Amino acid sequence: MELKVEVLMITTGGSRIAILSDETANLLGVHSSDRISITCKKQQLIAIANIAPYFPNNRVGLYKESVEALGVKEDEAVDVSLAPLPESLFNVRAKLHGERLREKDVFGIVSDVVERHLSNVEIAAFLTALSIHGLSSAENEALSKAMVTTGKTIDFGKGPILDKHSVGGIPGDKTSMIVMPIVAAAGYTIPKTSSRAITSPAGTADRVETLCPVNLSIKEIKTVVAKTNGCLVWGGALELAPADDIFIQVEYPLGIDPMLLPSILSKKKAMGATHIAIDIPTGMGAKIKTRTEAYTLASDFVDLGKRLGMNIQCALTFGDQPLGCSIGPALEAREALYTLMGEGPPDLRDKAVSLAGMLFEMVGAENGRAKAEDMLDSGKAEAKIREIIAAQGGNSAVKPEDLPVGPEKVEVRSKHSGKVIWLSTEDIVRIAREAGTPKEKGAGLVLHSKLGEAVHKGSVLFEIYAEKSSKLASALALAEQLQPVMLTNKPAEKMILDRVPEKVMHEKHFSLDR
Amino acid sequence: MELKVEVLMITTGGSRIAILSDETANLLGVHSSDRISITCKKQQLIAIANIAPYFPNNRVGLYKESVEALGVKEDEAVDVSLAPLPESLFNVRAKLHGERLREKDVFGIVSDVVERHLSNVEIAAFLTALSIHGLSSAENEALSKAMVTTGKTIDFGKGPILDKHSVGGIPGDKTSMIVMPIVAAAGYTIPKTSSRAITSPAGTADRVETLCPVNLSIKEIKTVVAKTNGCLVWGGALELAPADDIFIQVEYPLGIDPMLLPSILSKKKAMGATHIAIDIPTGMGAKIKTRTEAYTLASDFVDLGKRLGMNIQCALTFGDQPLGCSIGPALEAREALYTLMGEGPPDLRDKAVSLAGMLFEMVGAENGRAKAEDMLDSGKAEAKIREIIAAQGGNSAVKPEDLPVGPEKVEVRSKHSGKVIWLSTEDIVRIAREAGTPKEKGAGLVLHSKLGEAVHKGSVLFEIYAEKSSKLASALALAEQLQPVMLTNKPAEKMILDRVPEKVMHEKHFSLDR
Repeated sequence: MELKVEVLMITTGGSRIAILSDETANLLGVHSSDRISITCKKQQLIAIANIAPYFPNNRVGLYKESVEALGVKEDEAVDVSLAPLPESLFNVRAKLHGERLREKDVFGIVSDVVERHLSNVEIAAFLTALSIHGLSSAENEALSKAMVTTGKTIDFGKGPILDKHSVGGIPGDKTSMIVMPIVAAAGYTIPKTSSRAITSPAGTADRVETLCPVNLSIKEIKTVVAKTNGCLVWGGALELAPADDIFIQVEYPLGIDPMLLPSILSKKKAMGATHIAIDIPTGMGAKIKTRTEAYTLASDFVDLGKRLGMNIQCALTFGDQPLGCSIGPALEAREALYTLMGEGPPDLRDKAVSLAGMLFEMVGAENGRAKAEDMLDSGKAEAKIREIIAAQGGNSAVKPEDLPVGPEKVEVRSKHSGKVIWLSTEDIVRIAREAGTPKEKGAGLVLHSKLGEAVHKGSVLFEIYAEKSSKLASALALAEQLQPVMLTNKPAEKMILDRVPEKVMHEKHFSLDR
Repeated sequence: MELKVEVLMITTGGSRIAILSDETANLLGVHSSDRISITCKKQQLIAIANIAPYFPNNRVGLYKESVEALGVKEDEAVDVSLAPLPESLFNVRAKLHGERLREKDVFGIVSDVVERHLSNVEIAAFLTALSIHGLSSAENEALSKAMVTTGKTIDFGKGPILDKHSVGGIPGDKTSMIVMPIVAAAGYTIPKTSSRAITSPAGTADRVETLCPVNLSIKEIKTVVAKTNGCLVWGGALELAPADDIFIQVEYPLGIDPMLLPSILSKKKAMGATHIAIDIPTGMGAKIKTRTEAYTLASDFVDLGKRLGMNIQCALTFGDQPLGCSIGPALEAREALYTLMGEGPPDLRDKAVSLAGMLFEMVGAENGRAKAEDMLDSGKAEAKIREIIAAQGGNSAVKPEDLPVGPEKVEVRSKHSGKVIWLSTEDIVRIAREAGTPKEKGAGLVLHSKLGEAVHKGSVLFEIYAEKSSKLASALALAEQLQPVMLTNKPAEKMILDRVPEKVMHEKHFSLDR
């Protein structure tokens, strides 16, 4: 059927959708979600039909992406007909019925996700089915490989190519900013790409951006790594495993994360990583609550890594409280810089040298931890990060005091004396986000007391930082309501943790950060 | 944040979506799928945020539905801020995790589906989870009730209010067109609403529309029923159980049907039905393949009916081949009229009087079948349908020969002699749709030989009808490729039904028709 193009001057955020009126659709024998073939001169496009009641007859509505792909303009005549459904959709349906998918079926689905031949509804159903049925090792492998091959890859030359990754869950986890320069200073290649925070107060990309640019192109990244062995950049615009970003967009409102492993490892594989240390924060304050869960996840990582040709070791790390004292992009960058300069909180230092040490031992060192401590204490790691900051376009002479924290701040003092028995990471994240993180880089918290420490009446429990006084005020109000730091004088005082009079609707904190 | 309205002159097909640029979203702390609150003067709207890369900053894009709901116009200033997620979304997530939902949670979800506070992605995840986990009786009851109360209902006055419904699956099932007038002629109220075909060659609404109008308003339907006891109308625009239509739109591309029972029974309840006969075609050619499946479904129907205050009985009916000889809207209406006039195929007559008889016995008759046969043979059922045709705005004197079948037609002849051992309902549906059904009402098939009948070389197996000669040709080509009628001379000839050399991707016929 010949129809005239109606250009819809917005994008759909990617989906290959075309709009038809009820009547036009009826004449074509098309229902919403059917596929239609649109041809103009020799170009053809398959789009997902959406039926809009008040749309003009004799016209087909195309979004910007399709208009560009077809090379048409407003009012141009195109030929439209019903098209067959993509094979990937039948495989998605098979997965809804619990069938295991073969490698080539998985590849077809991932490829069609990237090419936008599957709608977000269809992707949502697929992810839900994966979430409920679980993934076999073969499916995890197929997904990872497909996600790599449907995107760009970066070749950093002769290996080994080292990497470190945390599955996340505890705020303040700035470890990568210390591990990377330690490893690079020892002469190993460690090109670290990171994400921006989605549900947490700060991602590594947000932290580093307070020191130097992070949105480097593939070419610029290769230059920095060639010069310095390392980098700390944002991975989001490099088109590595693009299917992952599409999956995450759909997972976000659904609160599911069925593809955690392929998501993480596909991006590592695309970077050519050969040896990876994976940090699994474990504990009540973390994403992974129990050791059993952690061991299962760890062995799945090791196994999938093997299948993908990567040597992976996992560390279960202390996850009952935030790491270090600072939470928020600039505050955490400052704390990381202090730590590289020889100061900084002991838990952060210990975690960084342990993980860097693990990596050293994976590539043959005898006493990895000692080697890492040497890189740190000798100042070589500090020199390395300054070198990388300069290579990425920042000021290598930056001092921790220079970092743009606040400027608004307020102290929250203790009303009693006692020992800190609990710091709610979930509440701390909420307060930090209320204060403005991660968008407002100067915002966040600085904890003055950690688990087990003694506190006097009137002493500072924590400080809240913000860029705007209105946000400082609402973060303070939230902190007063939530009371994230719990104290006790006597050991057996707080036996009743909480009451459950009826089923309480409780917003569980869902963490999608990688 | 204050933004200017950008009116997007199309509808989203319902979803409450607002468009923001990347930068605006960043400033608001909003990700795609988050909810935003849009206020103008005293009106407030909650919309689902979609982030579109090239959208202008300082503007919020609103679709027609939102523009009307808010009462704003292009360039008007509105206040936009991040809004909390709806409670229903947490319950959707709970269902993804396999939790059973309580009545009030279910009600919240259905209500938000109708109000468009849940996106199609979120609805897809919900339906997928229902499909995989299954529904408890309590959930089926809650869903049905919620679907009734979130839509319109029709009160036909003093009961009993009778109804008949088929779960579908075999082509040519025109039984309702005969059952309804039989029951109405006996003085019982039987207001029959039907749907249009989604995946089959003809729905009852499509068939009846060849005789008289079917798109009646609630007011007109009540008039027809008050006058005649019955009606045969399209239920799609009456806003009965509107959630159902939204669910079906999402289920369609996914090939799942987890809400078959609440879908059917909510619409019956909205019509005030008190006694329902449910036809479950069972057999290799039907939707329900085995008796075990059929008995399970039947008892689920009876149980859910009880919970909803409706007396339901089910009949498992012969489902190994199409019903009657005609397939396609006008062809089937013609065959139904012949049957009411005393002619017509024996299987159609037998099924109609059995189901009508079942209904009579449910309201107290001694020998229901005999009563039904009397209504038919006495001519009272024929008179009744002519009365209803007139009341709905058609010609009561219509003759079967008047019906607009074809006009193109072709005979497909047998190349051998033998007995008919198999008629593939799936292939017959494909050929009928290729010929133009259901949109082209004159299209379809007429079968000349049914299961077990003897056929000579050269005799007509079936005829294909079409409105357009191009469609006739492609339907004929398809028929020649598919060979839907299988013959044999000797009993044990075709022992090998098929071979499976490797896993073959096979488009299973998915039937969403009600």
